[in-house]
Amino acid sequence: MTTATLVRQTRPRPTGRVPDRSIYERRESEVRSYARAMPRQFSRAEDVWMYDNQGGRYLDFLAGCSTLNYGHNHPVLKKALVDYISADGITHGLDLHTDAKAEFLETFESLILKPRGLDYRAMFTGPTGTNAVEAAIKLARKVTGRELVIAFTNAFHGMTLGALACTGNAAKRSGAGVPLSHVSHEPYDGYYGGDVNTAALLEQRLSDSSSGLDEPAAILVETVQGEGGLNAASPEWLRAIAGIARRHGALLIVDDIQAGCGRTGKFFSFEGMGFTPDIVTMAKSLSGMGLPFALTLFSPELDQWSPGEHNGTFRGNNHAFVTATAALRHFWRNDTFEKDIRRKGDLLSRRLSAMAAEFGLSTRGRGMMRGINVGSGKVADTITLACFAAGLVIETSGAHDEIVKVLAPLTIDEAVFSAGLDILEESIRTVMTGSYSVAAE
Amino acid sequence: MTTATLVRQTRPRPTGRVPDRSIYERRESEVRSYARAMPRQFSRAEDVWMYDNQGGRYLDFLAGCSTLNYGHNHPVLKKALVDYISADGITHGLDLHTDAKAEFLETFESLILKPRGLDYRAMFTGPTGTNAVEAAIKLARKVTGRELVIAFTNAFHGMTLGALACTGNAAKRSGAGVPLSHVSHEPYDGYYGGDVNTAALLEQRLSDSSSGLDEPAAILVETVQGEGGLNAASPEWLRAIAGIARRHGALLIVDDIQAGCGRTGKFFSFEGMGFTPDIVTMAKSLSGMGLPFALTLFSPELDQWSPGEHNGTFRGNNHAFVTATAALRHFWRNDTFEKDIRRKGDLLSRRLSAMAAEFGLSTRGRGMMRGINVGSGKVADTITLACFAAGLVIETSGAHDEIVKVLAPLTIDEAVFSAGLDILEESIRTVMTGSYSVAAE
Amino acid sequence: MTTATLVRQTRPRPTGRVPDRSIYERRESEVRSYARAMPRQFSRAEDVWMYDNQGGRYLDFLAGCSTLNYGHNHPVLKKALVDYISADGITHGLDLHTDAKAEFLETFESLILKPRGLDYRAMFTGPTGTNAVEAAIKLARKVTGRELVIAFTNAFHGMTLGALACTGNAAKRSGAGVPLSHVSHEPYDGYYGGDVNTAALLEQRLSDSSSGLDEPAAILVETVQGEGGLNAASPEWLRAIAGIARRHGALLIVDDIQAGCGRTGKFFSFEGMGFTPDIVTMAKSLSGMGLPFALTLFSPELDQWSPGEHNGTFRGNNHAFVTATAALRHFWRNDTFEKDIRRKGDLLSRRLSAMAAEFGLSTRGRGMMRGINVGSGKVADTITLACFAAGLVIETSGAHDEIVKVLAPLTIDEAVFSAGLDILEESIRTVMTGSYSVAAE
Amino acid sequence: MTTATLVRQTRPRPTGRVPDRSIYERRESEVRSYARAMPRQFSRAEDVWMYDNQGGRYLDFLAGCSTLNYGHNHPVLKKALVDYISADGITHGLDLHTDAKAEFLETFESLILKPRGLDYRAMFTGPTGTNAVEAAIKLARKVTGRELVIAFTNAFHGMTLGALACTGNAAKRSGAGVPLSHVSHEPYDGYYGGDVNTAALLEQRLSDSSSGLDEPAAILVETVQGEGGLNAASPEWLRAIAGIARRHGALLIVDDIQAGCGRTGKFFSFEGMGFTPDIVTMAKSLSGMGLPFALTLFSPELDQWSPGEHNGTFRGNNHAFVTATAALRHFWRNDTFEKDIRRKGDLLSRRLSAMAAEFGLSTRGRGMMRGINVGSGKVADTITLACFAAGLVIETSGAHDEIVKVLAPLTIDEAVFSAGLDILEESIRTVMTGSYSVAAE
Repeated sequence: MTTATLVRQTRPRPTGRVPDRSIYERRESEVRSYARAMPRQFSRAEDVWMYDNQGGRYLDFLAGCSTLNYGHNHPVLKKALVDYISADGITHGLDLHTDAKAEFLETFESLILKPRGLDYRAMFTGPTGTNAVEAAIKLARKVTGRELVIAFTNAFHGMTLGALACTGNAAKRSGAGVPLSHVSHEPYDGYYGGDVNTAALLEQRLSDSSSGLDEPAAILVETVQGEGGLNAASPEWLRAIAGIARRHGALLIVDDIQAGCGRTGKFFSFEGMGFTPDIVTMAKSLSGMGLPFALTLFSPELDQWSPGEHNGTFRGNNHAFVTATAALRHFWRNDTFEKDIRRKGDLLSRRLSAMAAEFGLSTRGRGMMRGINVGSGKVADTITLACFAAGLVIETSGAHDEIVKVLAPLTIDEAVFSAGLDILEESIRTVMTGSYSVAAE
Repeated sequence: MTTATLVRQTRPRPTGRVPDRSIYERRESEVRSYARAMPRQFSRAEDVWMYDNQGGRYLDFLAGCSTLNYGHNHPVLKKALVDYISADGITHGLDLHTDAKAEFLETFESLILKPRGLDYRAMFTGPTGTNAVEAAIKLARKVTGRELVIAFTNAFHGMTLGALACTGNAAKRSGAGVPLSHVSHEPYDGYYGGDVNTAALLEQRLSDSSSGLDEPAAILVETVQGEGGLNAASPEWLRAIAGIARRHGALLIVDDIQAGCGRTGKFFSFEGMGFTPDIVTMAKSLSGMGLPFALTLFSPELDQWSPGEHNGTFRGNNHAFVTATAALRHFWRNDTFEKDIRRKGDLLSRRLSAMAAEFGLSTRGRGMMRGINVGSGKVADTITLACFAAGLVIETSGAHDEIVKVLAPLTIDEAVFSAGLDILEESIRTVMTGSYSVAAE
Repeated sequence: MTTATLVRQTRPRPTGRVPDRSIYERRESEVRSYARAMPRQFSRAEDVWMYDNQGGRYLDFLAGCSTLNYGHNHPVLKKALVDYISADGITHGLDLHTDAKAEFLETFESLILKPRGLDYRAMFTGPTGTNAVEAAIKLARKVTGRELVIAFTNAFHGMTLGALACTGNAAKRSGAGVPLSHVSHEPYDGYYGGDVNTAALLEQRLSDSSSGLDEPAAILVETVQGEGGLNAASPEWLRAIAGIARRHGALLIVDDIQAGCGRTGKFFSFEGMGFTPDIVTMAKSLSGMGLPFALTLFSPELDQWSPGEHNGTFRGNNHAFVTATAALRHFWRNDTFEKDIRRKGDLLSRRLSAMAAEFGLSTRGRGMMRGINVGSGKVADTITLACFAAGLVIETSGAHDEIVKVLAPLTIDEAVFSAGLDILEESIRTVMTGSYSVAAE
Repeated sequence: MTTATLVRQTRPRPTGRVPDRSIYERRESEVRSYARAMPRQFSRAEDVWMYDNQGGRYLDFLAGCSTLNYGHNHPVLKKALVDYISADGITHGLDLHTDAKAEFLETFESLILKPRGLDYRAMFTGPTGTNAVEAAIKLARKVTGRELVIAFTNAFHGMTLGALACTGNAAKRSGAGVPLSHVSHEPYDGYYGGDVNTAALLEQRLSDSSSGLDEPAAILVETVQGEGGLNAASPEWLRAIAGIARRHGALLIVDDIQAGCGRTGKFFSFEGMGFTPDIVTMAKSLSGMGLPFALTLFSPELDQWSPGEHNGTFRGNNHAFVTATAALRHFWRNDTFEKDIRRKGDLLSRRLSAMAAEFGLSTRGRGMMRGINVGSGKVADTITLACFAAGLVIETSGAHDEIVKVLAPLTIDEAVFSAGLDILEESIRTVMTGSYSVAAE
């Protein structure tokens, strides 16, 4: 498919009707965000394509912020879910045992844990990433008897009070309305530039009983910072952090909510790096189809919860068990999918590097989780606006939204992927050369 | 249907096979709770009935802790959802506008808000009740510039750090691993017995600048305390609390997560009481079918959020929009359902009162949200165990789990309801007269 | 001495010179307070008399807020101190052993602890009451492993962050600039009127694991609330509180900073009430001469401090050791002084009751720590202004400064005491009958 | 005076009597610290000499941790105080205006503020350094409306909860019993070695709205870290910190409690460095004679306190006003004393450098506030023990007590100073060469 074809197909074809969005003005809170940059009303979606109610078609390079790694409404997952619902499978069962849960656990054990030599217990938290993070830090505090959690600059871990304290963004933090305590944010890998080993800085302070940095219950880290600007930590740095945690009696929590489920090329983003986290949080693409689902994994010896000590009405979403099981069976029973991701990740890397070289920019990220730093949020916003006008859904990331990030479905056809990257490249070129005008849309 | 028939139909018929539950031992966290009291693996559910994988059938008087007010897999909701999925409706769209969201908002406005004269904005939080509560208290703190939230004894508001601070239960609280701050728990209506007006006690302390009770950002209250023992506050007390909030510059937040969606006889549990909350949190039965969904409602002048200031991957679950819209249209377009609930609520009240009278016990609650205080958690557990053995799923509530609570689907057939209450009555009788032996199962 | 004589002697005799107070305007912080109500510059003081630099003489019914129980510059104490300084006694020795410290400890043991059957260890904290309170709550938290401290409405315990959290006054609290955590303020004896037993309310919430009130490390209480309005708790209530602390594993801390050292008739304000605090804080009159000095006493089994775990440059003020020892030897070697205080306390009680009866007011307090509630801070301020104009230094107390409090030196001559009370009575009469005009001064 | 003579004169001459220290065992808390390393009972002190009750004499190189910059019982100060007491000067007057306070303020203005071009208001806090720090951070939080205080690694600011949160030492911090919040400890000058500019690291994080480091109310810094190991910040670094504070809307607080009053060669330790702190805290040597006294200075525009918003019984110790005024007049009316300190500081620097060179050690500090890093607390303790046995009172500092610190009175005679340093040198030599045995004492 050529770019021209793609663009032609995806460009919204206004029908002349001005869509009525007054219901949103009237009844939806000002807190809404994506809907502002993409003022369409979407009707349906399939694979990498989204359709609005005016006949427009869009290529999705956002993928629900990595929630739709297998694309929209994947037919295998969709069929499994429709069959389950049609047969009156349990929809909601609190944390009762169900067939759907048993199948998920067995599949997760046989296809994910065993082949990777991992021994984790699964805790089905409320079906949001922030809830999985809250459970993780509660458990770490309970097990260690310590309060402090070490998180990192530019980290994003969620919006409820415990997870928000671990999140770096000042605008998000200020929403708390109370001081956010019991967390210290340390510089992430590369934060002070390539010459400063920030793991060594952390080690020094933790080894110094007069540093004022208390003994931590946990170190909470993303291997790639999805919201924080697609900063990818090196395996060396992550191993150093794992070593620091172990030496100082802290638990290592990897928040794999955005980077997990294949996004970086492996099921877990930390695979093959030479360390094993004590706790792992998962959500986003875990259900495979975009259904709310979250999971906190931890070593059996850490499983010191009392029954119901952390609970929640929607823990264990049975619809999500069904689609997650189907996704694991379809994508993760052998290494075909991994190889596929790697190839596309390399393609993405080459294309972004070329764009960066052309305009003197830099790239970020790992696997199919990469972006390009265009210098400012204003420039990045203009680029994503140009992309959207050309039928490409794409978003920004980073402290100042200065990174245009590509989070295409991992299942994307390579020709379509290339065509989408052509749109991105052309948009960057137009904006960087000053020839883009907002009025163009 | 006679009790005998019901019991016969619902009693699990062991097939001789011992169900294999080793996967749970091996891979599910010790935090699981309901599965311990009801050690079955459930396969499917329809209306008020749940079926296990050994051929057993159970009448559901738990209803997902009031998440299944319309029963399991209601055919109208189920059809709407299957149609939507089959047509590749948007499953996950972050907070983008979708047809499903627009229809939900329009339906909620026309069938719920307008007829009740309520003017609220809707904020779709992460799809858990705790997230809706976190959003509510964040907003209250932001708008008022104050930190303290007043919650009540025996309150339950969720498990993430902000909501957990508002929860009364010590076992839940201790899971936090850090001190829970910025919340004061005040005595609920009737806490000190009928003679003490606890609203007056609160008023006195808030009016005294030397009481040490800081000016609150919000007063957060359940009209009936679902987890806390089915304590129902009187309209007078709730009005007094609303007045206190107004006079002291605090926002009144009604947590209607368990008591809302018709459970107490009206869509909102506070209807007709002569006050309007500033903020209302909803979840549980809002989707109608048990799908994860949560909502924080507030007056437009409080809508001071910045875009994305509180966000989350699964905010606005489109599947839930679809079933919620179908449920609103099916049950709430006129007052038939309300009248129906009232009638069943009266039946429930009469039956529980009779049981209480027989054994010198007391009842609690309102509408279809009622329970019987059997004096201790041990007795209550034995009763629910006896019920389960007779094919009735029922649970306890209260500080010491001493309340056997009836949370039947609101749609339950009255004959079936009576038959289920017969099982409960017989179980209570057997246990209270000492003729029940656990070995009986 | 007649009132007329007293008034004549004490009324300031303006010399015509306007005293220069510009240095205070220029260089002293706005935080100053007493100097505003009593705009004189004081030069010297002796016994119950203070002299300003314009030749005025004032009778002191404030006594440094109970810091000068033995009056100003008592000759015995003064001589001991001058002798010590003249002989180059150690002035500052950190926490080194000194002759002065040994003598104080031995005297305190033989004259105070032994006769009362008390077995306490002494911790010399930084020489401020707030520091003694900080040490007490740190120790209680350390020993119990709990965080929450229960303090009471209208409590005053100091201004550093830990003690301030225990203080009730909103204006003081707001100075913190951060939320004050880990403390719950419960209603003091009589707070809800005579019919409500507030100890029983506390017991109920602490016995209820779902009340939201965490298990406390300590209950911190004043037997008479000096700053909070001279509320005197009954022995029954204090015993109940002591029992609650014991049953719930909390330490009982009596803050005897203002009420101790004889103010209520005994050395400790809790003597003879049938309970023994785990921890006692002392300061104010402990040095006897107004020198900075503070002490935290606790049972030996609670002495779990590591060396230097709580320290401070001025802990163990040696000048204060000297005067404190002299004061103990002079006033507390037999029960003469106690009887003397009791007699004067009765006199005070009679006089205040008569005033209250005349004007339909009420009295507060115990021993030589009593006041009269004149209804509002405005009225109370006018009364103290009238007193000051008549040569009597007296201040207010209470949430709204509505209590005129009498804290005369315990050593005051009874005739002088009566004459001072005449001034108070006359001032109240003048103000209550509306015949007082501020211009009068 | 030769070392031999000095040693002979100072070595304790046991009288054969074993001093009775049982009163301390029985009645003084385990929290005592210095008394353990120096198990003598001191009786009197004069100039640089301390005398025990067994006839021993000791040269004081500890000087009350810089509280006795003018030595013990300086005759000029002593006379002023005895005269004041003898004339019945006000001993305790709360915060009333007194002659003593007026004279102190006028003297402080004319001899300290005016010559240095400083315009500060004086707030007399409770007479402890920790109270002065609490007042400073309360004011900074109040004025800026922010909560976070930035303090530094190895900082020591006091032991009450607000100041303790700013203190780095883990053993001190753990005494709190609650998490210490609202403070972040950043690396001090040189913390990561000479190559890392820690001010630049701080600037980067404060300039990054996603760093997770909130906007600070204040940056609290010691110019030389007295307890933290005599680390002296460079003027460049301090200016950078001052610039960071200004640019980020934070107040700069210099804690000059230990380094002030001439210890580093000027009255304030920050003089001549090209920046002016917004707030300065003082205590220790301010009274000149070791009396409890503390002061918080700030720019007039920051004086936003309400009357009594921070108060305390012993604020404004009149005895301390008298001796402080006498000390200012005696030592600070011209630059003789400053020159004197500089000369002795140079001597100290030379001597310590020579010792360091001999044993391959390093030195720390500035002015008359210097130490030598002997590598470990064990070695340092042995050295101070050897010194004490030779009649020299000296102590350690630093995270691991690895710094032997010299805090001699600034008034020390140079020959005596040299002789004391001879003892130190000889002790180091004995210990470092392994020829010291503890049994030697």
